Amino acid sequence: MAEIKTDIEIASESKLEPIVDIAKKCGLKEDEIEQYGKYKAKISFDAIHRLEDKKDGKLILVTAITPTPAGEGKSTVSIGLTQGLNKIGKNSLVALREPSLGPVFGIKGGAAGGGYSQVVPMEDINLHFTGDLHAMTSANNLLSALIDNHIHQGNELRIDERQILWKRVLDMNDRALRNVVVGLGGKVCGFPREDQFMITVASEIMATLCLAEDLEDLKLRLSRMLVAYDLDGNQVTAGDLNAQGAMAMLLKDAIKPNLVQTLENTPALIHGGPFANIAHGCNSIIATKLGLKMSDYLVTEAGFGADLGAEKFFNIKCRLANLNPNAVVVVATIKALKMHGGVNKNNLKEENVEALKAGFSNLERHINNMRKFGVPVIVAVNKFVQDSDEEIKTLINMCEEIGAEVSLCQCWAHGGDGTIDLANKVVEVLDKEKSNFKPIYDEKLSIEEKVNTIVREIYGGRKAVFTSSAMKKIKKLEELGLDKMPVCMAKTQFSFSDDPTKLSAPKDFDITVQEVRVSAGAGFIVCETSNIMVMPGLPKVPAALNMDVDKFGKMSGLF
Amino acid sequence: MAEIKTDIEIASESKLEPIVDIAKKCGLKEDEIEQYGKYKAKISFDAIHRLEDKKDGKLILVTAITPTPAGEGKSTVSIGLTQGLNKIGKNSLVALREPSLGPVFGIKGGAAGGGYSQVVPMEDINLHFTGDLHAMTSANNLLSALIDNHIHQGNELRIDERQILWKRVLDMNDRALRNVVVGLGGKVCGFPREDQFMITVASEIMATLCLAEDLEDLKLRLSRMLVAYDLDGNQVTAGDLNAQGAMAMLLKDAIKPNLVQTLENTPALIHGGPFANIAHGCNSIIATKLGLKMSDYLVTEAGFGADLGAEKFFNIKCRLANLNPNAVVVVATIKALKMHGGVNKNNLKEENVEALKAGFSNLERHINNMRKFGVPVIVAVNKFVQDSDEEIKTLINMCEEIGAEVSLCQCWAHGGDGTIDLANKVVEVLDKEKSNFKPIYDEKLSIEEKVNTIVREIYGGRKAVFTSSAMKKIKKLEELGLDKMPVCMAKTQFSFSDDPTKLSAPKDFDITVQEVRVSAGAGFIVCETSNIMVMPGLPKVPAALNMDVDKFGKMSGLF
Repeated sequence: MAEIKTDIEIASESKLEPIVDIAKKCGLKEDEIEQYGKYKAKISFDAIHRLEDKKDGKLILVTAITPTPAGEGKSTVSIGLTQGLNKIGKNSLVALREPSLGPVFGIKGGAAGGGYSQVVPMEDINLHFTGDLHAMTSANNLLSALIDNHIHQGNELRIDERQILWKRVLDMNDRALRNVVVGLGGKVCGFPREDQFMITVASEIMATLCLAEDLEDLKLRLSRMLVAYDLDGNQVTAGDLNAQGAMAMLLKDAIKPNLVQTLENTPALIHGGPFANIAHGCNSIIATKLGLKMSDYLVTEAGFGADLGAEKFFNIKCRLANLNPNAVVVVATIKALKMHGGVNKNNLKEENVEALKAGFSNLERHINNMRKFGVPVIVAVNKFVQDSDEEIKTLINMCEEIGAEVSLCQCWAHGGDGTIDLANKVVEVLDKEKSNFKPIYDEKLSIEEKVNTIVREIYGGRKAVFTSSAMKKIKKLEELGLDKMPVCMAKTQFSFSDDPTKLSAPKDFDITVQEVRVSAGAGFIVCETSNIMVMPGLPKVPAALNMDVDKFGKMSGLF
Repeated sequence: MAEIKTDIEIASESKLEPIVDIAKKCGLKEDEIEQYGKYKAKISFDAIHRLEDKKDGKLILVTAITPTPAGEGKSTVSIGLTQGLNKIGKNSLVALREPSLGPVFGIKGGAAGGGYSQVVPMEDINLHFTGDLHAMTSANNLLSALIDNHIHQGNELRIDERQILWKRVLDMNDRALRNVVVGLGGKVCGFPREDQFMITVASEIMATLCLAEDLEDLKLRLSRMLVAYDLDGNQVTAGDLNAQGAMAMLLKDAIKPNLVQTLENTPALIHGGPFANIAHGCNSIIATKLGLKMSDYLVTEAGFGADLGAEKFFNIKCRLANLNPNAVVVVATIKALKMHGGVNKNNLKEENVEALKAGFSNLERHINNMRKFGVPVIVAVNKFVQDSDEEIKTLINMCEEIGAEVSLCQCWAHGGDGTIDLANKVVEVLDKEKSNFKPIYDEKLSIEEKVNTIVREIYGGRKAVFTSSAMKKIKKLEELGLDKMPVCMAKTQFSFSDDPTKLSAPKDFDITVQEVRVSAGAGFIVCETSNIMVMPGLPKVPAALNMDVDKFGKMSGLF
């Protein structure tokens, strides 16, 4: 048997087309792109304006069942699906998130798909790419510098140093920066205070940029961001500091979508990558809207399982951007369903049809949830080498029994050829079933009612419980008139409940909301059910230690 | 009288040529550049290798007299001179430093020349440019994260947390980060310790990249960087942590020179921008060497006055890179010479021939210093509107009396047309006078001897005095065998002495070396004569507050 190739080996054997040719393929004029090297480009505002009146293509969301820690391959299926759609003669594009630099140096693993379904140049995409995250780091930290400088220079706004909500960021896994004291060193160094560094993708700037319609809207949103309270408890925004202009200037290129290609030379948009817990976890509205103009079938993806990713995609992104999703693909793997059926994580490679049957309830609840949004569902079974024929047959039968379209895909091993069946089924469903998309709650409801709706309708739980700290924050937001926005649930991705050990389809549980805060620029209220890690650390042997680059620029040790 | 246009107004009225056309002009093939938008590019290693055997052009350094706080216009003269050389039919290129993002938001003012002698697109050059500084920030902070992670994960190297020399960086003016405590928050957040943030351009990575010959050499140098001492006082290097591969990977594009153009569409290389105090203050060796292959006349620049910038350019950069400078242009302004002649900074616009005569001694010492390196000198008088005819005549006469070539330039007001005379004089001198360049000290001398030579020969002082702390460090470096490298003096740029109030050409003074440390990756020993500010702060009303960008991406408030 042939040795299995690594992602970077497969990627480096692929023949990339110049990005100008890819741009032409999707109808862009040569002067509508700005090249970043030969294989990456930013798409200009001119293109966006020119295409404004064009008819939208169909919007297909790829989401997943409750995942194992390794993930179930949403990006890989998304890329495979767009490759498959192009194979069957459809004009399709994929829109994905851009990866963070920090995790690259921690535990081996990129974020650009896998096998024969990757976006390339994967090494650039996983490193600095077109500098979007660096621009966000700069904009975020400029605001921090302006806050501390304002206090140092007399504190006209009477900012309460004990209540500064805005944190500094770096695009690095660095646990030593989780909790810091800044401003030490005496009078010329400002006032000492506690601060925290988050990883850049956790910055509200990332969420805000991803939900902005254009540069003007971004500036407005940035100015609304709540950065602190003053000594009387009034809110202090970035706009009060007049920081939005300079921040938007730093972001003027980052707001433009990035164009790359898949391994099969079909076009791909990669733009924005907000956290899927404290933020909404999908690529920018600008990229999605542009992708709908540039193609007949736009495939996109949302982070974590469907209880988090799809829920937020529908209730936050589609609501705010007036998007009309036409179909949703739920990625399932046999190994994850066996885990939900009670199999130990170390034994998932062994055939176990009974466990698969037992774990099916997880997939079933996700399918039913998607239907509550009025969107047609297709199940994509992402095939792994160890899956047995019996297991595959069982899973497909069970899907069909509950009336769900289902397709076995081999996107990792065969790229677009491995997803032709899925592509055909998706087109069939789109032709046959009309989407009646609707968010599942009214954003004008109280925060408690909104959360309770999600808990009951999506998680399958009893109710939400709010700590006294959470209730205090809710009251404060109501006072400030900041409560009439969608909620963004920060919950473990490993269970429908807030307890990661409750697998499959748990019932009769409560969800505890520990903390509530607003992302006023992004336009949602974050409800945290546990302490969310916003600055990862490095492992005992970081992947960085095995990385190298030779004198010709050829890299090794990267995935 | 017509209103005087701002730099950004002049720049935005200019007609830029596509960077592919600029590349062609300097003999680069289309596939030897990587475009970053339409007007910026990186030059590939292929081009560098292809040109390796080509004959070098002439190397012309632009330096200056002891400056006023506003600077005397070295960048403007450098750009004007290359434009002038092209006007008279010479094939000339300019190589400059790339600016830091931090100061842009502090006090109004860019770093891309001025008036009709600018490099463009100036707004991009002054903002993220091609991401070089962001890559350095990442590489620097990856090393910091690896150090703290090493300690957290068991500290096999027995790093002494009290003796970590490696600091974190951000490309931001942020005084609150000058002194911080990191690692707070308990066991999962590492060990608490003191740390400091510097501005990115002060990172040893910047100095190291600028002195590296290629990616291989960079990796070697990175691995040599001294990052801490262990509990027994032994050195711990980046190589001991095995960080050099991942760091070099992050820098694989940053090490490639950037190509832009002047307002007159002549090619310009902009690459690297190390501090001129704790580092050597000039653009990368790679850009300089490539520029010599790509042109017959390469104009380049070094930071601060000639006592610092030119001294380091000759003794550090030219020595390490085996460069042979052919001529040096010393920029002088009448206003600065009047200041050296005793005129108060507020009255420099008033005619004062006597003060000009009195202050001439500053220029004279710089001219004599340059001759000690064996390099022919030309004085460029950078004309300002308020300079009187009598003052100009006096200055030119005084230069001629001491046998110095001199030219009046109007590069700000007239671009290349304003520097045709200077260009002709430079070509004349190059044809007529042979350079006998030689560094003024042997790097194998002791640190004290090297510093004393600079103090006597360049500063015109008596001797160097070393504090006991400095002596202790010198001893340590001698023990480690790290003392046989050039020294990098960190001294005020406002005086030949270490007292910024001693103007003109002070005598009979001692220089006190307060602190000594090694930049082992860069390959020099830093001798600090005062506490050097490595993290600037923002002023009371930061320039950021007036910046804006409209929905079409058009910026305002930037210079």
